[in-house]
Amino acid sequence: MTTTFELRHRIRFSECDPAGIVFYPQYFVLFNDLVEAWIDSVVPIGYHGLIATRRIGMPTVRLEVDFKAITRMGDDVVLVLEVVRVGSKSYSLALSCKGVEGDLRVSAMQTIVTTSLQTHAAIPIPDELRCALIPQTQRNTQ
Amino acid sequence: MTTTFELRHRIRFSECDPAGIVFYPQYFVLFNDLVEAWIDSVVPIGYHGLIATRRIGMPTVRLEVDFKAITRMGDDVVLVLEVVRVGSKSYSLALSCKGVEGDLRVSAMQTIVTTSLQTHAAIPIPDELRCALIPQTQRNTQ
Amino acid sequence: MTTTFELRHRIRFSECDPAGIVFYPQYFVLFNDLVEAWIDSVVPIGYHGLIATRRIGMPTVRLEVDFKAITRMGDDVVLVLEVVRVGSKSYSLALSCKGVEGDLRVSAMQTIVTTSLQTHAAIPIPDELRCALIPQTQRNTQ
Amino acid sequence: MTTTFELRHRIRFSECDPAGIVFYPQYFVLFNDLVEAWIDSVVPIGYHGLIATRRIGMPTVRLEVDFKAITRMGDDVVLVLEVVRVGSKSYSLALSCKGVEGDLRVSAMQTIVTTSLQTHAAIPIPDELRCALIPQTQRNTQ
Repeated sequence: MTTTFELRHRIRFSECDPAGIVFYPQYFVLFNDLVEAWIDSVVPIGYHGLIATRRIGMPTVRLEVDFKAITRMGDDVVLVLEVVRVGSKSYSLALSCKGVEGDLRVSAMQTIVTTSLQTHAAIPIPDELRCALIPQTQRNTQ
Repeated sequence: MTTTFELRHRIRFSECDPAGIVFYPQYFVLFNDLVEAWIDSVVPIGYHGLIATRRIGMPTVRLEVDFKAITRMGDDVVLVLEVVRVGSKSYSLALSCKGVEGDLRVSAMQTIVTTSLQTHAAIPIPDELRCALIPQTQRNTQ
Repeated sequence: MTTTFELRHRIRFSECDPAGIVFYPQYFVLFNDLVEAWIDSVVPIGYHGLIATRRIGMPTVRLEVDFKAITRMGDDVVLVLEVVRVGSKSYSLALSCKGVEGDLRVSAMQTIVTTSLQTHAAIPIPDELRCALIPQTQRNTQ
Repeated sequence: MTTTFELRHRIRFSECDPAGIVFYPQYFVLFNDLVEAWIDSVVPIGYHGLIATRRIGMPTVRLEVDFKAITRMGDDVVLVLEVVRVGSKSYSLALSCKGVEGDLRVSAMQTIVTTSLQTHAAIPIPDELRCALIPQTQRNTQ
C-alpha cells in the first residue's frame, strides 16, 4: 500500500514560454506546490507551519526527470505524487504530470532531506511528517 | 451592474521571498492567472484560444497598485476582479487580493489593450470578449 | 543633483510569454534585481546584508506603471533607476526599461518602505541606506 | 577537447525562498539562461533567432540533478556548461553551479532535443548549432 496524492491543474499562460508550451522549470514549481498541498492535507500545522514555526527545511537533494511529451497553454493536467521511500533523514517521491486521459507528460523521482533552518544540516524526519509519509496499515505491521 | 469574478487561493512557498511574505511581482502572476480563469469562464474558446488560435494579445498598458498589508506563506486569500471600463480597444479591471475575512492586502487598477499578435498593434476588442466584458442587462439598456 | 543607476540586460527566453514578449510581471523581477544591484553598489553590507543580517525589509507600498512598447526575446535593454524622493520611513524610485537606442518601453514610479522583518512594521530608513539615497553634494547643503 | 562556457552570477533576492536559499526550480531558470547566453556566443543568429526566426525548439527531454550544498541570497556563483554528447537530433550538457572558490553546489546532466516549433517533432540538429556544439579541432579529425 502506498501514499498517493493528486491535483488537477489547468496550464496557465504564466507557465508557458515563447514556444507556447510549459517552460520546463515551471514543472518544478508545480511539483513543489503539489508537495506543499499534499503536506497541508496530511500534517495538521501544514507546510508553512513546518517551515515558519518549526523551522524545518525540506530541500531537494536529488532529481531525475523524463520529459515525455509537451504540455500546451490551456491543457488540463493531473499532478500525481507517490511516496516511494522513507529513510531516517530523507524521503523519495515519484511525481508525474499527466494529461486528463492519463497520457504521461513528465515523470520525476525526487529525494528530499529534512533540515534545520538554523544550521541547514540534515535532521531526522520529524514525527508529524513521518506519520504522514507511512500509511497507517503499513505502520501497524512493522 | 458590474461583472465580477473571484477565486480563492492559498499562498504557496514558491510565491514567497526570503522575508517569508509574497514576493510582490508574484501578485501580478496571481492577477494574470485570475484574468485568465475569468476569461476561461466567460469566453467559450478560453484565454488560450484567444492567444493561440485567434492570435489576440492582451498586454497591460497601465497599472496602479497599492500594497496595503503583507500576505504570508500559507495564508488563504480571495482574488477579486471587477470590470470597471470597456473602451473600443482596451478595458480596465479593478483587481484585489483580500484575506478571507475581507481585509485588503493589495488593490490594483489595470488597463489591458487587445492587440494582433502578428503586428502587436492595438485592435478593436473582439466580439466574443466584448460580450463577456459587458453584462447582459447593461447591454440591453444601451 | 540626483542619484541614478543603470544596468544593461538582454531579455531572456525565460522572461517571455507565449506572445514572444516580456511577461509583464517579469519587469518587476528585473526592477527588483536592479534595486538590489544598486543597493549592493552603494551600501557596504549589500541588499542581502540588510535583509539577512540587519533583518530590514524593503516592501513596495505603491506602484504606478506605464507600458509604452513591447520588448521581445533577445532584445538588449537598459534598466534605469533614479531616486526621486527620500522620506523618513520610505523612498520613491523612478524606474524604466529602455531599448539601447533610448526608446522607452516601461516606466514606473515605486514607493518602498523600510520595515523590521521581526514585526513587518515601518521603521526609519537605516543610516547606511539613507546615506546612499541622498547624494553627497545634496547632504552637504542640507 | 571539449566545449565549455561559464558565467558569473550573484544570487538575487528574487531567486530565493522563505528559507533564504535558492528556490530549487530557479537553478533551472539560471541554467536555461546559461544555455541561452552560450548559444548567443556561438551561433550568429542567437538563441532568439533559432526560436523566433528559424522556429526551432530546444526542449529538455532528460534531467539528472544532484544538489550538493545550499546557495544563499547574495552569494557569488559560477555557472558552468560543458557539451558532453552530440547526437543526430539531441545533445547533452553537463551543467553546474559552483561557489567562487570552486565548491560544488549543484551538478546536472541535461539532454536537449531539437524540434520544429510547427509540429513539436524532433528534427536533426540544424547545421549552425551543430558547428557550435563540436569544437573546431574535433571536427577536423572526424
